[in-house]
Amino acid sequence: MSQETQNTPTIEQDNNESLFHLTDENIKDIVDAVESQDSDTVTTALEELSDADTAELISKIDNDNREELLNMYGESISPTSFLEMDTELQRITLSSMPAHQVASIITELESDDALELIMSLDEEYQQEIIKKLNAKLRVVLEEGLSFPEDSAGRLMQREVVAVPEIWTVGKTIDYLRAASNDLPEDFSDIFIIDPAYHVLGKIPLNRLIRAKRGVKINDAMIAGITQVPATMDQEDVAHLFRREDILSAPVTDDEGRLIGVITIDDVVDVIDTEAQEDLMKMAGVEQGDFYRAIFATTGTRFRWLFVNLLTAILASIVISFFDVAIEKIVALAVLMPIVASMGGNAGTQALTVAVRALATRELSTTNTWRMIGKETIVGSLNGLAFAVITGLITALWFTSPMLGGVIAAAMIINLFAAGFFGATIPIYLDKMGKDPAVASTVFLTTITDIVGFFAFLGLAAIFLL
Amino acid sequence: MSQETQNTPTIEQDNNESLFHLTDENIKDIVDAVESQDSDTVTTALEELSDADTAELISKIDNDNREELLNMYGESISPTSFLEMDTELQRITLSSMPAHQVASIITELESDDALELIMSLDEEYQQEIIKKLNAKLRVVLEEGLSFPEDSAGRLMQREVVAVPEIWTVGKTIDYLRAASNDLPEDFSDIFIIDPAYHVLGKIPLNRLIRAKRGVKINDAMIAGITQVPATMDQEDVAHLFRREDILSAPVTDDEGRLIGVITIDDVVDVIDTEAQEDLMKMAGVEQGDFYRAIFATTGTRFRWLFVNLLTAILASIVISFFDVAIEKIVALAVLMPIVASMGGNAGTQALTVAVRALATRELSTTNTWRMIGKETIVGSLNGLAFAVITGLITALWFTSPMLGGVIAAAMIINLFAAGFFGATIPIYLDKMGKDPAVASTVFLTTITDIVGFFAFLGLAAIFLL
Repeated sequence: MSQETQNTPTIEQDNNESLFHLTDENIKDIVDAVESQDSDTVTTALEELSDADTAELISKIDNDNREELLNMYGESISPTSFLEMDTELQRITLSSMPAHQVASIITELESDDALELIMSLDEEYQQEIIKKLNAKLRVVLEEGLSFPEDSAGRLMQREVVAVPEIWTVGKTIDYLRAASNDLPEDFSDIFIIDPAYHVLGKIPLNRLIRAKRGVKINDAMIAGITQVPATMDQEDVAHLFRREDILSAPVTDDEGRLIGVITIDDVVDVIDTEAQEDLMKMAGVEQGDFYRAIFATTGTRFRWLFVNLLTAILASIVISFFDVAIEKIVALAVLMPIVASMGGNAGTQALTVAVRALATRELSTTNTWRMIGKETIVGSLNGLAFAVITGLITALWFTSPMLGGVIAAAMIINLFAAGFFGATIPIYLDKMGKDPAVASTVFLTTITDIVGFFAFLGLAAIFLL
Repeated sequence: MSQETQNTPTIEQDNNESLFHLTDENIKDIVDAVESQDSDTVTTALEELSDADTAELISKIDNDNREELLNMYGESISPTSFLEMDTELQRITLSSMPAHQVASIITELESDDALELIMSLDEEYQQEIIKKLNAKLRVVLEEGLSFPEDSAGRLMQREVVAVPEIWTVGKTIDYLRAASNDLPEDFSDIFIIDPAYHVLGKIPLNRLIRAKRGVKINDAMIAGITQVPATMDQEDVAHLFRREDILSAPVTDDEGRLIGVITIDDVVDVIDTEAQEDLMKMAGVEQGDFYRAIFATTGTRFRWLFVNLLTAILASIVISFFDVAIEKIVALAVLMPIVASMGGNAGTQALTVAVRALATRELSTTNTWRMIGKETIVGSLNGLAFAVITGLITALWFTSPMLGGVIAAAMIINLFAAGFFGATIPIYLDKMGKDPAVASTVFLTTITDIVGFFAFLGLAAIFLL
């Protein structure tokens, strides 16, 4: 709303680069100022940075400087800039600040944003901070926290614009103008409710403004809109938004009364996190690992690697059954990792497709079997192809057609198993109520290792000894 | 807008399940009707299904029934339901329909949606269809296709509401009411432009409606808003939207003139696809594999597996250097997969963190080295932990403390390398302008296999022979 912008057009951004304002040099300058305790420079910088830039700065500096910055210059950091951070970074930064300061940050935010920040904290610290808040905000936050974690109730905005069904378009517009200051800062839909607060429909502002003043609001509204129960899981909400291509939905309580609204921008983070999580889980990495301290990270990774060690030992035991064969034909030891590795990779391909299809709910009973069938056939066909290739290579390398035949047969068996189990394991885990992304890879590599070693070494023992 | 909804509230949805309308039974009934050529049932069903349901139906039935459905009942399928499909499914369904029918589907859509559908097709078929369209739509689509693939220009909506800076709030409202039919169906921002079509700012409808009629529009507008050049890559657009927490941005041409608008819902798909793609690429699977035919899928997977075979052979060559040692101590063959597998898994953990940090642009020069350092330390610490564990197990299993010592040392070396290379490889590939998700895993497992086998078998050859 500044005057100058109307005379000088704001088209300074002529390439993509300049849209991202905070450069590495800026960061370095600020870090230097923090280290040399040049408080004027730091304070000025913090005041000039946008929220997104402040969050980026805090994410990119190292732990010591971050703590220094938060302790010494906490007051100069805009409360809203914490909203631009990753949840794990929110937890880390807020946890390192004294409770009274966190309380004053939260007090300056809108209720939904306050809830977002408080949710990032450990429960104990949550309670400590809530105690320091004024009664009104405390009630709102406690109510928000009463909804299940990751539910629509935690995601929604409580500020809604709703008008009774008996109003006209004109009366609604007059109300919006008169009640201006009591309305949420931004909104684009008005909900139409009955006296019991049930949602009858909505009217987007652009329709309202174009409708005739005398028309009854429920003749102008869009009826039968999708509603979201407050207890709905946020991933279901995200799925619903994508499936129905909707931009906003009213949130209702147990009795179907309007208590809030979820808009597409609230859902973006959920959608983003969902797909990322699968990637992380399949590798045994935790969301937020990027910001976690070294020992905490080592600990979470250790567990995953330990499970993997057990499966590797299982594979070793299988190999040890065939020690006599290996002693006689050392080529078996040379070649056996090829069979196992191809199985593991082919299986991971099938697995990834199945995990994503489950996450995006593209599977029904009808096409689940079709997918398993397809993945098994794809695995087997590639098994055939690589049987020919590795069979030939082996026969030439070790001048033994028989050894070539054995590895070829093992390859077909293992890639068949890889396709079948890669597609089946996630579906089975999902049916059992487990998260298919977490444990699938471990189960799968165990199977492809064992099948691979058994097939290759077993066939060798039969045909080559 | 139906009358009945105002008397009977539309709260039938009392649990999450019922929000997803199309059941497996529904699908089965429709498939049965398609197979028995019961055209009345199929037509009625298609007319009753929502767009999302129709898309779901088409995604879930098998290829033969899908073709039958598209050929026989194509006219009963709502054109907008194609918009609810995955890009690969759009390509498959539209490619199997005759060009004139695709042209008539596209003609019934809004220009942006028409562009989305046409973009999903192969270039040759695109041209064939465009020839069949009316001149006006043809120009719009050709202009749309002239923007680089995956650019803001392809993502944007061309219908924008813009008013000159000299107007008042009242005049703007009157214009919206008068021009009602010429305006886009849905909009929530009005852009303020100078005579050269440069964007000066915007005013959201909810502010406009609350402002005083006499106020000049450029005193009520929000100035200095983020603008997106039409050539900007869509991933940059998505990053910008998330970073700046914006809901919409004007799109400008080379000269900074307003030519369209991108809203957050246009960006959702980009965000969703981005994270999914990394997961897919790291496993050597292509987006859309779920819908692709068996032979096409086998082909794309083959390439990845072939590269993997080459790296596995490299590992085998390393093993073959130590055939004498293995012949003498067969326990080496039994244990060597453990060292390799732990290295591969620990490396994948570091790799996943680096790939995601690159994708979400959390890395700067300052914290890149910090991340590499952290991942190397985490790898080494877990190397130490698993050195102790596997060392002890091995010493007991094979009653050889020396063998235990050898595997312990190899474990430390390999997990150190895993952490270091897992973090470094994606960053190096990114610096070289390559996609870090695609080739990283192949490079990484090659390194961890070779380092693992060399360390374990090499140390064994030195200390145990």
